[in-house]
Amino acid sequence: MTPPELPAIIVEPIVRAALLEDLGRAGDITTDAIVPQDAPPLAATLAARKPGRIAGLGAALTAFRLLDPDVRVEVFRVDGSDVVRGDAIASVTGTMRGVLSAERTALNLLCRLSGIATATYALVAAVRGTRATIACTRKMTPGLRTLEKYAIRVGGGLNHRFGLDDAVLIKDNHIAAVGGIRPAIERARAGVGHLVKIEIEVDTLEQLREVLEVGGADAVLLDNMSPAQMREAVAIAGGRVVLEASGSVTAQTVAEVAATGVDVISSGWLTHSAPALDIGLDFAG
Amino acid sequence: MTPPELPAIIVEPIVRAALLEDLGRAGDITTDAIVPQDAPPLAATLAARKPGRIAGLGAALTAFRLLDPDVRVEVFRVDGSDVVRGDAIASVTGTMRGVLSAERTALNLLCRLSGIATATYALVAAVRGTRATIACTRKMTPGLRTLEKYAIRVGGGLNHRFGLDDAVLIKDNHIAAVGGIRPAIERARAGVGHLVKIEIEVDTLEQLREVLEVGGADAVLLDNMSPAQMREAVAIAGGRVVLEASGSVTAQTVAEVAATGVDVISSGWLTHSAPALDIGLDFAG
Amino acid sequence: MTPPELPAIIVEPIVRAALLEDLGRAGDITTDAIVPQDAPPLAATLAARKPGRIAGLGAALTAFRLLDPDVRVEVFRVDGSDVVRGDAIASVTGTMRGVLSAERTALNLLCRLSGIATATYALVAAVRGTRATIACTRKMTPGLRTLEKYAIRVGGGLNHRFGLDDAVLIKDNHIAAVGGIRPAIERARAGVGHLVKIEIEVDTLEQLREVLEVGGADAVLLDNMSPAQMREAVAIAGGRVVLEASGSVTAQTVAEVAATGVDVISSGWLTHSAPALDIGLDFAG
Amino acid sequence: MTPPELPAIIVEPIVRAALLEDLGRAGDITTDAIVPQDAPPLAATLAARKPGRIAGLGAALTAFRLLDPDVRVEVFRVDGSDVVRGDAIASVTGTMRGVLSAERTALNLLCRLSGIATATYALVAAVRGTRATIACTRKMTPGLRTLEKYAIRVGGGLNHRFGLDDAVLIKDNHIAAVGGIRPAIERARAGVGHLVKIEIEVDTLEQLREVLEVGGADAVLLDNMSPAQMREAVAIAGGRVVLEASGSVTAQTVAEVAATGVDVISSGWLTHSAPALDIGLDFAG
Amino acid sequence: MTPPELPAIIVEPIVRAALLEDLGRAGDITTDAIVPQDAPPLAATLAARKPGRIAGLGAALTAFRLLDPDVRVEVFRVDGSDVVRGDAIASVTGTMRGVLSAERTALNLLCRLSGIATATYALVAAVRGTRATIACTRKMTPGLRTLEKYAIRVGGGLNHRFGLDDAVLIKDNHIAAVGGIRPAIERARAGVGHLVKIEIEVDTLEQLREVLEVGGADAVLLDNMSPAQMREAVAIAGGRVVLEASGSVTAQTVAEVAATGVDVISSGWLTHSAPALDIGLDFAG
Amino acid sequence: MTPPELPAIIVEPIVRAALLEDLGRAGDITTDAIVPQDAPPLAATLAARKPGRIAGLGAALTAFRLLDPDVRVEVFRVDGSDVVRGDAIASVTGTMRGVLSAERTALNLLCRLSGIATATYALVAAVRGTRATIACTRKMTPGLRTLEKYAIRVGGGLNHRFGLDDAVLIKDNHIAAVGGIRPAIERARAGVGHLVKIEIEVDTLEQLREVLEVGGADAVLLDNMSPAQMREAVAIAGGRVVLEASGSVTAQTVAEVAATGVDVISSGWLTHSAPALDIGLDFAG
Repeated sequence: MTPPELPAIIVEPIVRAALLEDLGRAGDITTDAIVPQDAPPLAATLAARKPGRIAGLGAALTAFRLLDPDVRVEVFRVDGSDVVRGDAIASVTGTMRGVLSAERTALNLLCRLSGIATATYALVAAVRGTRATIACTRKMTPGLRTLEKYAIRVGGGLNHRFGLDDAVLIKDNHIAAVGGIRPAIERARAGVGHLVKIEIEVDTLEQLREVLEVGGADAVLLDNMSPAQMREAVAIAGGRVVLEASGSVTAQTVAEVAATGVDVISSGWLTHSAPALDIGLDFAG
Repeated sequence: MTPPELPAIIVEPIVRAALLEDLGRAGDITTDAIVPQDAPPLAATLAARKPGRIAGLGAALTAFRLLDPDVRVEVFRVDGSDVVRGDAIASVTGTMRGVLSAERTALNLLCRLSGIATATYALVAAVRGTRATIACTRKMTPGLRTLEKYAIRVGGGLNHRFGLDDAVLIKDNHIAAVGGIRPAIERARAGVGHLVKIEIEVDTLEQLREVLEVGGADAVLLDNMSPAQMREAVAIAGGRVVLEASGSVTAQTVAEVAATGVDVISSGWLTHSAPALDIGLDFAG
Repeated sequence: MTPPELPAIIVEPIVRAALLEDLGRAGDITTDAIVPQDAPPLAATLAARKPGRIAGLGAALTAFRLLDPDVRVEVFRVDGSDVVRGDAIASVTGTMRGVLSAERTALNLLCRLSGIATATYALVAAVRGTRATIACTRKMTPGLRTLEKYAIRVGGGLNHRFGLDDAVLIKDNHIAAVGGIRPAIERARAGVGHLVKIEIEVDTLEQLREVLEVGGADAVLLDNMSPAQMREAVAIAGGRVVLEASGSVTAQTVAEVAATGVDVISSGWLTHSAPALDIGLDFAG
Repeated sequence: MTPPELPAIIVEPIVRAALLEDLGRAGDITTDAIVPQDAPPLAATLAARKPGRIAGLGAALTAFRLLDPDVRVEVFRVDGSDVVRGDAIASVTGTMRGVLSAERTALNLLCRLSGIATATYALVAAVRGTRATIACTRKMTPGLRTLEKYAIRVGGGLNHRFGLDDAVLIKDNHIAAVGGIRPAIERARAGVGHLVKIEIEVDTLEQLREVLEVGGADAVLLDNMSPAQMREAVAIAGGRVVLEASGSVTAQTVAEVAATGVDVISSGWLTHSAPALDIGLDFAG
Repeated sequence: MTPPELPAIIVEPIVRAALLEDLGRAGDITTDAIVPQDAPPLAATLAARKPGRIAGLGAALTAFRLLDPDVRVEVFRVDGSDVVRGDAIASVTGTMRGVLSAERTALNLLCRLSGIATATYALVAAVRGTRATIACTRKMTPGLRTLEKYAIRVGGGLNHRFGLDDAVLIKDNHIAAVGGIRPAIERARAGVGHLVKIEIEVDTLEQLREVLEVGGADAVLLDNMSPAQMREAVAIAGGRVVLEASGSVTAQTVAEVAATGVDVISSGWLTHSAPALDIGLDFAG
Repeated sequence: MTPPELPAIIVEPIVRAALLEDLGRAGDITTDAIVPQDAPPLAATLAARKPGRIAGLGAALTAFRLLDPDVRVEVFRVDGSDVVRGDAIASVTGTMRGVLSAERTALNLLCRLSGIATATYALVAAVRGTRATIACTRKMTPGLRTLEKYAIRVGGGLNHRFGLDDAVLIKDNHIAAVGGIRPAIERARAGVGHLVKIEIEVDTLEQLREVLEVGGADAVLLDNMSPAQMREAVAIAGGRVVLEASGSVTAQTVAEVAATGVDVISSGWLTHSAPALDIGLDFAG
């Protein structure tokens, strides 16, 4: 199921800032100098130049709308659609200045978010039939986290925590600071409300056993373990906690990881390095 | 020569916003719940996990400084340095909360910008000995354009225009709107000040000849031409305008493009799809 | 244990905005007109005029510091301290303009947040010895949620979700929209990541039984139930989910509610109606 | 007479920020996960659960409108209306997501502002027939001063100064800094424009006499005087200045204070401690 | 007496925004490209090129400090000083980039504000010996009102109201809307607090008489009256209200206006059309 | 040709901020207190009180629209029109509060920008028939640069660089820092992209000759040269670079400067000291 679009109150300010960044202090000086005031409306089509999954169409269309409130929009492929090269995604018809000045901002958003959704979906498809879900990380573009988390969902993935404040993730340094896994989990449990989950990162199966013995953790992050270790971790955990596999997962290795029986496979690559999806704006005529 | 760092007045607000995005409404709840108030300072080292070129260290260190004004920093490799796997880039020693809470934001910025600088430098190295310089485009991350343009410079590239307002770039639609290359250039020339350059995009050598005949353009963008066409374009232009090659340039093809004699080779891939450079934060002990 | 203070990067912008709201377009015109430029420094003491628990001292002192960076501060009672009438909380010595102009903003923050901590602690004390913890709600002051959630923690309470995005809380309308408790929980579980908890609101014990049968919920909110019903709910749940009692809890009734065996008692009154704690600024001499 | 509503240009940014604070980085994840895209519109009614005076309906309805621009609104009781338990105040019909996501923000604003108006009106009613008006202070919620000052007016009160910059209020420290009441008033008069009023705080009738003798003050604040002292102050002043009674005024004591003949009775309690008015959102069916 | 400087919390954000407006998306590209990283510090002196009164030096120096926190500053002539051509106002010594990049922003602020102070002082000097004070209007530069109002004070003038919200000014349309001067003043008096002054604009002496008869106004604005009319107005008012002369007052005519006995002479020209004071930055060597 | 209007996305935030600056914390208290809720709409006309050229009408009308979305507007004279005293520029009909509260902000913007356009056009007219164009500088009002640059274009002038980042302007200090004109130009050329122009400031003809010999500069700024020197500079340059005359150009001297054959004449006076154009708002009836 495609997730609902983000509310406009969240998306619009991001798009507005992106447009202003591009318009700078004088706006589109090329169009201003050349295009006559009475130029006819311009029609253009967002079209895929490579296969992939669309995400961020709402943001892209907002760019056109912010520069031309009367732009006419027709959507052919909503977010979550899988397109092939040449597919028309949406068309816009508006003032020449509005369409031309918004083009780059619209594409910058749409190509990036679609790239993330495409990469996510590739992993999701690769693990189909296993119990594993694909999750993102916090390795995201500063300023775009909300949009990128959304693109992960559009790709069929699920979101890891949004920031430092909505879930507990206990790491080496936390454990060391307080002298062990038990006090770390206990202090975490005592310090946060009843709607906050606790995950703890482990490097060894020994640590996993200790976590299970202590109890109180909702999930365990298996850091850079081999598939063999993960399989053993699954056996050890026996469903008592959610197991998350983390490390350098790629489209090549993800199926093998999923086959170990872990519940969640997270990948930072999806947002820090996935290539943009190639989408262009074609003009009629 | 490494370009000067961006002034703090530009960088700090971006880092501040990135930190706030990660801290959310409650801050680092894991550290808050677990780490004792009197925990000892934490020392950590930014270290390369892959070879590449460093860019954005100033932004990364700003993240630590904003959460711990007294953090002690030692820099081993400034922006523009080329590192190999394992190289220490800088060390930070500060409060445990400060260091742990800033870690992800610092790395998100440093890895992304270093990824861009690394990719840029790969192209720059590949065209060494030719007259060609490597340039970026406006296919950039919304909100980070200033930082990404800077990373291009650190990689040895030069910046294309920053936005729609600091140079004229005449495209198909502008030409069509006004009925030809001549009126487009003339209107542009008449409409902008004496410190604005004019570039025009052409698809054919025929168009290039017309541009040269009309005069008034400072640069011509050769859109998706073959190396053979580019070579001919260089001959036709005879140094009268700057020639920019644009299209799907890759590390594999860039040398061939440069060999045609064009002046500038621009690549959107550098900023929309270059992978992040893998840099981690290692903790002492 | 007193929770760690919020990071300055979160607190300072709120205090800054509060000061600017009070300074308006011309600053403190009274002090400007009357006090000579060479007036001696002013010393003043934040003192409790009523008993209660202190919260927000960091924000209050930030107000003085923002108007006089060289202000000298001495803290006698940190956040989480319980004071009686007359207790000195902290002293400030700075420029006359700085101290006088910051006074009201500092007190507005300190009195409000201490009022919340005081009210919270009253409930916490009343349920001591039971398994119940005290939690807040989202009935908070627009713009101050982060600070108010912090004050709840200082009072010994725990935070409910911070907003609409960090935990699932299924209510009547959600259940109705999808035709039942089972599909509601199932859709929620499928739609959110592994670090998001799910709570569901029920009006009847019948609904509670259905929730338990369906499984997948981490917590159940018992809406406006009588103590007798709550006691039965505790028996029914048998520790399989966290039970939250919600409704018009007061200092008078909270002990009775806690005695039912529920895990969490939440109160909106703590933030929407708790009176400010009376704290004043006393000047030396 | 009910005061005019604040202009939207002032109110909307506050409501927008409040919504974004609640929506966080992912929006209403409960509704997003559960409610089908084609769910029917939701109708709901803002209804009083306690008697009181309504203030802030415009802000509350703005919350719904910002999340669903097409929401249909019907207003039954405008700001300034006095309601009894059960009274319908307004109805909204809109998208399920819009209505559910805006609910808490709308109520947070409406209940708080109505609480202030209700408390204010209680004092206003208690002094009816005397010459006294009820005024607020600057003991207000940071960030909401404009709205809270408005709620005071809706309650029938009048506003004290808005901040440090729109009127002079001379206090002890100012007098001490310059060596007496006379130089304080004279310097104030010389330092501000002809549209700024001057009030001075006095603790004793002696000081009041000195103020009157010096002249130049528009108002005198009688700080924590007994009714007997106030009555004497009224006699001494003989109408030459406005007299403001300040101190711990309550609904119980205000009539006695008003009976002394003072012109203005100010109360910080109205905004720092008045309880919210209980208003809920009822859903049809 | 020179008025106290505006607090940094008000001034700094304005200067910061001005610098960012000038630095744009890439900073000072000239200095970055040319000046070596190890260039020696640069010393420069703000010097008057025309006689006038200095205002805004704090804002100007803030510009240098924001780009070079370690800049050394020496002040020779504080705000309110009257300088002649060639006078050194202050010197700055800092990094070459800091000094050169801040130069224009510093001068833009200093020249404009000094221009206003100079023009104001010219009027103030021209009316010396009369009872008239010089006041500004709301005909000010959007975004700079706080600074410009300050410059008026530095010039020896007094501020008219700061905006629409801190004093009542009744004009023709208000009177017409409510059917006469009496109801207008009465409604104003009833609608605002005891610290708000009321001024009313009149075109004729007839209207002035009516205002006095009605009572309740603190000041009367005589709109575009001749000196003869003003003199008569002064006689009619007999000191019962403050009289403000408004219209096209110039340095040539202001003495004649002042001689009529009015209390306040206001001039919009001081802020909308006064020329900047010519101040430059001289470099050593 | 009149330049296209700036896009609303740039203009509206400036106008919005200007309105909020004027409305302050309580809005238009005069109108609120006096004008009945059911007052009839108010019609008013923006009318020239002096001859000049209109610029900024869009910004002015935006002010009315932001306070009354339903205001009806009729435009008689668009930006770039030359008006005489008494000419109606546009009419607005809206709520009394909307029209009265927006009046001052609308006029502040319109009068200032029209003043700049008027002053610019005076110079443009004075050099008609020569090759010279009129340009502005960066001596602009902080916060209004985009609008003021636009007003220059409306006046028939062309824009100099917008900030420190969109063109290179080499001055004395840059040359001194690097030891000569040649290295300065060479470093500049190497350090910036192919769409950035380079201008260099010279004080003597000797320096001009050196610049030409070095090559690489697009323009040369002749700083404070006499007409005789400029004429010689034109002869020396022989069309190889753009020559800009800068210094104290006035309407009196500009024709003589233009007659020297320079290409560009720049004037800071246009934006730092040009008087506002007198435009008023006339009310019907």
